[in-house]
Amino acid sequence: MSADDAMFKNAMRLLAGGVTIVATSLDGENSGLTATAVCSLALSPPRVLACVNHGGRTYELLSKSRIMSVNLLAEGHEDLARRFAAKRATQADDRFGNTEWRTAVTGAPLFAGALAALDCRITDIMPLDTHSILVGVVEDIHFGPHGRPLVHFEGGYTSLLSALSETMS
Amino acid sequence: MSADDAMFKNAMRLLAGGVTIVATSLDGENSGLTATAVCSLALSPPRVLACVNHGGRTYELLSKSRIMSVNLLAEGHEDLARRFAAKRATQADDRFGNTEWRTAVTGAPLFAGALAALDCRITDIMPLDTHSILVGVVEDIHFGPHGRPLVHFEGGYTSLLSALSETMS
Repeated sequence: MSADDAMFKNAMRLLAGGVTIVATSLDGENSGLTATAVCSLALSPPRVLACVNHGGRTYELLSKSRIMSVNLLAEGHEDLARRFAAKRATQADDRFGNTEWRTAVTGAPLFAGALAALDCRITDIMPLDTHSILVGVVEDIHFGPHGRPLVHFEGGYTSLLSALSETMS
Repeated sequence: MSADDAMFKNAMRLLAGGVTIVATSLDGENSGLTATAVCSLALSPPRVLACVNHGGRTYELLSKSRIMSVNLLAEGHEDLARRFAAKRATQADDRFGNTEWRTAVTGAPLFAGALAALDCRITDIMPLDTHSILVGVVEDIHFGPHGRPLVHFEGGYTSLLSALSETMS
């Protein structure tokens, strides 16, 4: 027996997560989406994992291009996060407008204002019903301006208290 | 060519993450570890994903017991997070002392003070070098006292600004 979906959604609202944009490009078409289901996975080579819904155009392009950028958003990027969480208004992905994106080594679009932007080549795609787990080897990293991260919690965007407690061992 | 491990670690310090304790139990032995690499994965049935290092006793027990709890920590649980991030001092897992743990439906230990504690049955274990991706179907959920989450960022623990921006659509 499994837990109720609604109760699970309520619990997952309590899992704080750094907000990222996962983006890709194929034949000149850029596409991306807002994601908090991103983890550091392993070293040598460095790898990250992102969970992406099958439904959209971004997944379609990710699965064909096999390249992705993971862009860690900062405080102040709420509007960008909302824009990439909404559906694409047109065939061309107009959500990339009015912000500075660069083309990464792999060809994926990198957001210049991100705290860090990881340029990845996708090595594994593991489908699990509605979502797929994408594993990417990080080929290059761009660091943007230093700042506090944009964090998603209880269905809204916020940031961190400035004071950090002592560092972990 | 892949990015340098040290540069990757610096980038991953900038990925904010809600802090959890992933715990399990086998033949009366409890074991757990602090993890931020936890994601909501899918619905119907609800599933979560956790990335766990192969090296420790907790992974050994998780892979045999096939049960795990994912306990979302709150502000004020820094000491608990540090305790479960440190190595076990003895064969018995003394890190469970002085805090209220309950036995979940599956038999996994649930932390009563967690914002939410998910009781899961592990359905898939995908090894990837040093780490494995564990997928668990959520069988039961316990909600603890309402509060702000404990968040890991730049190698330290902190919490959120109390003011949330408007909720997402």
